[in-house]
Amino acid sequence: MLNITGQNFIAGQRSSAGSKFVLSYDAATDEALPYQFAQATPEEIDQAAQAAALAYPAFRQTTPEQRAVFLETIASEIDALDDQFIATVCQETALPEARIRGERGRTTGQLRLFAQVLRRGDYLGARIDLALPERQPLPRPDLRQYKIGVGPVAVFGASNFPLAFSTAGGDTASALAAGCPVIVKAHSGHMATAESIANAICSAIEKCAMPKGIFSMIYGQGVGEPLVKHPAIKAVGFTGSLKGGRALCDLAAARPEPIPVFAEMSSINPMILLPEALKVRGDKIATELSGSVVLGCGQFCTNPGLIIGIKSPEFSQFLDHFKAAMAQQPPQTMLNKGTLRSYEHGLKELLAHDKIEHLAGQPQQGPQAYPQLFKADVSLLLEHDELLQEEVFGPTTIVIEVESAEQLALALNGLRGQLTASLIAEPQDFENFATLIPLLEEKAGRLLLNGYPTGVEVCDAMVHGGPYPATSDARGTSVGTLAIERYLRPVCYQNYPDHLLPLALQNANPLGIARLVNGEMSKAAL
Amino acid sequence: MLNITGQNFIAGQRSSAGSKFVLSYDAATDEALPYQFAQATPEEIDQAAQAAALAYPAFRQTTPEQRAVFLETIASEIDALDDQFIATVCQETALPEARIRGERGRTTGQLRLFAQVLRRGDYLGARIDLALPERQPLPRPDLRQYKIGVGPVAVFGASNFPLAFSTAGGDTASALAAGCPVIVKAHSGHMATAESIANAICSAIEKCAMPKGIFSMIYGQGVGEPLVKHPAIKAVGFTGSLKGGRALCDLAAARPEPIPVFAEMSSINPMILLPEALKVRGDKIATELSGSVVLGCGQFCTNPGLIIGIKSPEFSQFLDHFKAAMAQQPPQTMLNKGTLRSYEHGLKELLAHDKIEHLAGQPQQGPQAYPQLFKADVSLLLEHDELLQEEVFGPTTIVIEVESAEQLALALNGLRGQLTASLIAEPQDFENFATLIPLLEEKAGRLLLNGYPTGVEVCDAMVHGGPYPATSDARGTSVGTLAIERYLRPVCYQNYPDHLLPLALQNANPLGIARLVNGEMSKAAL
Repeated sequence: MLNITGQNFIAGQRSSAGSKFVLSYDAATDEALPYQFAQATPEEIDQAAQAAALAYPAFRQTTPEQRAVFLETIASEIDALDDQFIATVCQETALPEARIRGERGRTTGQLRLFAQVLRRGDYLGARIDLALPERQPLPRPDLRQYKIGVGPVAVFGASNFPLAFSTAGGDTASALAAGCPVIVKAHSGHMATAESIANAICSAIEKCAMPKGIFSMIYGQGVGEPLVKHPAIKAVGFTGSLKGGRALCDLAAARPEPIPVFAEMSSINPMILLPEALKVRGDKIATELSGSVVLGCGQFCTNPGLIIGIKSPEFSQFLDHFKAAMAQQPPQTMLNKGTLRSYEHGLKELLAHDKIEHLAGQPQQGPQAYPQLFKADVSLLLEHDELLQEEVFGPTTIVIEVESAEQLALALNGLRGQLTASLIAEPQDFENFATLIPLLEEKAGRLLLNGYPTGVEVCDAMVHGGPYPATSDARGTSVGTLAIERYLRPVCYQNYPDHLLPLALQNANPLGIARLVNGEMSKAAL
Repeated sequence: MLNITGQNFIAGQRSSAGSKFVLSYDAATDEALPYQFAQATPEEIDQAAQAAALAYPAFRQTTPEQRAVFLETIASEIDALDDQFIATVCQETALPEARIRGERGRTTGQLRLFAQVLRRGDYLGARIDLALPERQPLPRPDLRQYKIGVGPVAVFGASNFPLAFSTAGGDTASALAAGCPVIVKAHSGHMATAESIANAICSAIEKCAMPKGIFSMIYGQGVGEPLVKHPAIKAVGFTGSLKGGRALCDLAAARPEPIPVFAEMSSINPMILLPEALKVRGDKIATELSGSVVLGCGQFCTNPGLIIGIKSPEFSQFLDHFKAAMAQQPPQTMLNKGTLRSYEHGLKELLAHDKIEHLAGQPQQGPQAYPQLFKADVSLLLEHDELLQEEVFGPTTIVIEVESAEQLALALNGLRGQLTASLIAEPQDFENFATLIPLLEEKAGRLLLNGYPTGVEVCDAMVHGGPYPATSDARGTSVGTLAIERYLRPVCYQNYPDHLLPLALQNANPLGIARLVNGEMSKAAL
């Protein structure tokens, strides 16, 4: 068993000042684990936020190389966690060992990728307009711009990725890379996991001699609100439900000083099956798609929740196969009891809707989630029915049959913002349906062709974002290196002498980065 | 006299469906001008928003070159406006002719600069991660990202820059460059000016065969709220008061689909006068500073509203000179009666405060604004007194004398977010006060050395932004080419065939732009 104290992490100290405790559960049996976690008190939250504010000036002024080494050290510490750690994550989430080992690799790979970004230096956005003392009618001063971290960031761990979207996940990695201290609200579903990762981060802080206030983590219910309201917090990262994310957005917008919230929330990830593809490989699509719907018990933000096809013999044949494939999918254990309850509630609402038909799946009962398939009338999309647009988190999906290509465009127009939108298509379909692409660009952050949206690559070009309600701000992404931009703001120096400028803007270009100098990109010294 | 119809501009049509009209006034005499402007009805606002939404897909898919030519055509149309136009702007704002001619040059230069940005293409943020089909354990798909306009943008014209921050100002130029349709709410202080500029834009739309829905402009009181609430609007640009900007932010955050608001609001632009500089050139600073405070009747967002120095014989001597210089400044006519009322109200509050002393300036009376100088007790800054932090828009400033370098740092810590922060310093001051710089970086968007903040260069490196309440989002700027990023969002394509990709991401790199390919910047074809 892991050595879990259950105390909050407050700027390098462990603290349990309050008298309330919360428990973590075995996801498979719903039995309480032998740990208790101290609910953070308002004073502890304030201490964490104050410490973050105090640590911010020194931390944001560390060099990109120092922060790169720091992120790599966190990665090494997490890679060094032992089999007991893996077993604990599996116990808290009911996710299989191979998935958790893979997710750890993704998490540490993500930290190392941000180290590369720091060394590359493009995130600094260095721009230099040299003085034009002779310009008429007025001289131009010397102006230089780069980006700095916005300040302490509150990060909310996600239920479904205990590693990659939690304590040391993408929000934390990108905020630390930007030079922003982080305060994590540990997700209630995997608090022992969170503690192990927090220990790894604290160990890296020690090894790299970073200011202790750059990382804190708090446990408990209702601790998110005082954290987001704290004046020291300057931005928020969140992955979770629309209700939870919107509540944080509303809190943040109502502060005396409003702050940005990057909430990744609700997406039904439409997949459009085009005629020629169904003709050529409808059966294969049915098999692959059912696999994607039930992957990880459907507990992905990018789970395909809406399948659209045009009425035709091919689509009918696909549907028969898809029904059969979905009917064969076994039940799986969900992340926790709350997630199962929520899945059951979602299914009940779909079953009760008179324009939604149940096509496949055994009756939902017992401790596991049964995969389900529904078919909805196209009018629900055309008339913007709320229920159809709401993500049912779990192994279920809804099929819609449209009458024609024209109705397909209308139906897609009726969609809210999405993380992904996928086309399953053959070359002939591209010709006939090219006008769908601009439409999908306006609806989603990532457009896939002949792929299933559940895999989210961590790289420079990834966008894990999209228009509301997929996220609260379509201009950000929570996966990939562009995620760092959410936590940066530009600062401009006018007529500063070289030695008082940040390294990124000095004439000699000591960081060796690409800079926009008088409108041209250049790595040259000035 | 100009040919002013006073009708709203609704997607290429002139419209006055309502029965309410508003008037424009001669700023010097407060007499109504012989024009009346039709207050937009809810239906007209809806028409404008719907037309913008309809025009958006075609407009955002125009090539960067097409939009560059369009912006240049707007610039030419504005440059071609005749002397009657200039006279009308002067009449509506009481700003001198040379200033208005200069501001026109700034405005059209800004449009042409965004044309350069479009041709340069870095705003597209093109990123390509090529497929790795052999990667273990999973292949990497082909992933490509670039940025598109977010959708229709509502722009609120500013009172103090009838050209550069109004109908065809920085918000409009950056939004159009991004491929976003624009709906302008004309500022009530210069509606005839706005109409002339709107005509120039409409003429450019005709000449470039752009969709008519990409530009509308509405007149009237209370028309901003329905515009910001309209579901077709995806972002807001605003320059004005803290009260007005915050109200728009609150409206936008409370929408069913919240949208970002880029509001540039309130800044007192602290200037710190360091000891050696005062020793060497205190008298010169007093003269220059008084000129900066009264420039344009103090009606600049970057007007220096707070002057801080350390108690010393040099500072006392500076103060004597500064008092004398301010006392000699003549009264000036403000932009309109409302601005004068607001200035009078601000002065009254300062005069009534028992820790604020009036140092110079004739009693405020009559139709013009008299420059004023105040001195506030440092305790107001240390104790976060609200009044001291509020911008008094007009030719006035407040001096604060701190006891020591330590108290200076404390006082600066007490400041809210600012557009600018300036140091007046000699090399020896840099040595002694270097620790002030990181502190100022956290407070302001632009740091000046030995300059006065009232000039705002339009270039790549400019930041006209800063932490709240200077703006509603410190991650943006409303001046300079980075302003375009406020209206862009990333979209990612996974496994798209070359011919279906946008030009920016095609293998051959037909736009010839720099792209981040597998982590390296390159202009090469793939």
